[in-house]
Amino acid sequence: MSDRPLSFEIYRESSRTKARRGRLRLRHGIVDTPIFMPVGTQAAVKSLDPRDLAEIQARIILSNAYHLMIRPGSKQVAARGGLHRFMRYDGNILTDSGGFQVFSLKELRRLSDDGVEFRSHLDGSLFKMTPESLVEVQEDLGPDIAMMLDECPPAQAPHDEVAIAVERTTRWAKRNVAARRREDMAWFGIVQGGLFEDLRQGHAEAMRELPFDGFAVGGVSVGENTEEITRIVKFTAPLLPRDKPRYLMGVGTPGDLVRGVAAGIDMFDCVMPTRNARNGQLFTSNGRIVIKNAEHRESEQPVDAQCSCYTCRTFSRAYLRHLYTAGEVGYHRLATLHNLSFYLNLMAKIRSELDMDTFDAERMLREMGPAAE
Amino acid sequence: MSDRPLSFEIYRESSRTKARRGRLRLRHGIVDTPIFMPVGTQAAVKSLDPRDLAEIQARIILSNAYHLMIRPGSKQVAARGGLHRFMRYDGNILTDSGGFQVFSLKELRRLSDDGVEFRSHLDGSLFKMTPESLVEVQEDLGPDIAMMLDECPPAQAPHDEVAIAVERTTRWAKRNVAARRREDMAWFGIVQGGLFEDLRQGHAEAMRELPFDGFAVGGVSVGENTEEITRIVKFTAPLLPRDKPRYLMGVGTPGDLVRGVAAGIDMFDCVMPTRNARNGQLFTSNGRIVIKNAEHRESEQPVDAQCSCYTCRTFSRAYLRHLYTAGEVGYHRLATLHNLSFYLNLMAKIRSELDMDTFDAERMLREMGPAAE
Repeated sequence: MSDRPLSFEIYRESSRTKARRGRLRLRHGIVDTPIFMPVGTQAAVKSLDPRDLAEIQARIILSNAYHLMIRPGSKQVAARGGLHRFMRYDGNILTDSGGFQVFSLKELRRLSDDGVEFRSHLDGSLFKMTPESLVEVQEDLGPDIAMMLDECPPAQAPHDEVAIAVERTTRWAKRNVAARRREDMAWFGIVQGGLFEDLRQGHAEAMRELPFDGFAVGGVSVGENTEEITRIVKFTAPLLPRDKPRYLMGVGTPGDLVRGVAAGIDMFDCVMPTRNARNGQLFTSNGRIVIKNAEHRESEQPVDAQCSCYTCRTFSRAYLRHLYTAGEVGYHRLATLHNLSFYLNLMAKIRSELDMDTFDAERMLREMGPAAE
Repeated sequence: MSDRPLSFEIYRESSRTKARRGRLRLRHGIVDTPIFMPVGTQAAVKSLDPRDLAEIQARIILSNAYHLMIRPGSKQVAARGGLHRFMRYDGNILTDSGGFQVFSLKELRRLSDDGVEFRSHLDGSLFKMTPESLVEVQEDLGPDIAMMLDECPPAQAPHDEVAIAVERTTRWAKRNVAARRREDMAWFGIVQGGLFEDLRQGHAEAMRELPFDGFAVGGVSVGENTEEITRIVKFTAPLLPRDKPRYLMGVGTPGDLVRGVAAGIDMFDCVMPTRNARNGQLFTSNGRIVIKNAEHRESEQPVDAQCSCYTCRTFSRAYLRHLYTAGEVGYHRLATLHNLSFYLNLMAKIRSELDMDTFDAERMLREMGPAAE
């Protein structure tokens, strides 16, 4: 292993698609790619503990600099020994900047070339994020991978507005590079450009000149439909450096993951498995089920007979439905264990097919049928 | 082991107090007494799963016939193979009748000698509980120990009102005995009588004539102060058959457990450790702490340095405080694991002192200091 905070090796390329089978070496261990990263916004994957994360074989999770900056504060986390020690999690962590969350505040924010001012969603107190402050915040948190501050316009933004955001993001990327102090953290750049291929191309070309350890496709999953996402990801991924990990932010359904891998994406995150778990939607090999539905009332079946997670090994749908309808907080964790296992198992299956070079996205999507949604 | 659903052996009696060191043999394993039973009202100890219960070494938990009758319905549970199989819990279960919950409905109930009619707290639909229906419900659920339906008047009820409740409870006890069909379940009788020693004595004498496998002191923890509870428990426990387990329902603080053991009680249950966990109150060797308090913001200490539960082995107060203030659902489980461990560890310590015949309630309470509250 090199002394760099991140090294990435591609040891198999798919003959039918642009998919890559790779391996990330990070400070907290090896991550086989393509990988899905469970979301743990507030220094916790909702309802799970670090043993649960080990059990479902999560190798890298996401957290959010914006949320932690506001509560408990990045200096607090630094004083507690950094994010890994604070959470007692010894796997890898990627922190998103949280710029996406700030841009979605709308009323509460003021954007300038310097950065973005906003009022906390908790108590209205004023904060400012600049490329430099986000470096400091994330260097306080000390994840294995940190994301630069970018400007993320909404999906319906017109060409000239997106063009301005792209230019600004490039300037912010250079300020990110200049502001870094720690040498043990990897940094990812983010390519914006909305649904405009000329802007995506221009931004990818500008960003790939800068010293980042990996690159993300940003500004996706902000309101587009599946076809638009697929088109932009297929267009943008090949523009990113071949020898560095590619991360598709905030995507998506199981089918989106398969399509993303086929386009050459190595890393994914999405709140869908964790959020759907809470809301009673469970992923299965036959498509999503709504656990509160009366059809599960007497079901002795596990959520998914093909799944070997603790929840599926142990409990009937009837019992999970009871916990859900009775408002039992324990439901939340059992559902989350399953939904994340479903996502992580899908990625393991994709990796296995890539190992054997049998990965065929169209066939896989066909076989998944409703389970892709 | 005998063919009876319950056998109880006292193998050491305390020389300083009325405490007993015993062993219960039940259908789902041995329970060393005195024991505390975590409360799992709706077929789940809130936030925990069966592995968690095994980890904290809970040997018997409580559930509630009234709650399960209303949701998901006792026939549903029976069709799922009974309560143990429904929950996938292979330890012992005691079901309370839930009469206590029904009597606390006040506006929604109508009491007669036949039983009690009430409207569901969920949807207002009409239910009736009789001694016979409660036998049927609990024989559907199939716990290791079931509680008879009793009438539980409030703490401030006058002598003549309590006297009527006592008489009715005795008549209901006889109907309970007559209605039983299953031979593999143990049944406990309940002694009422409020704060009146003459009524407690009369009721204990009436109840001990009936074929129950154990006896509970009921009608305590319905609004009395500690002195009143202590007085009634000390008075009532010795009136119960010496060779059968004695259960003090719904009690109490750590100190209440020590005092209860000294009075000759073998089994306890209380929502306090689980409810306090949710509300941010954690038990420690130095007394309860309120985790949201600012003093814990930077604390690297575990909740209780003397505790070896997963939560205390793993997390700092600072992190638990963060989870609590951030509204993270995972806090709930970590706090519950600790509070129940605190209670179960206290009982283990009491048993150990009884084994050595060093148990001295006054000394123990003195040494516990604020931890008794």
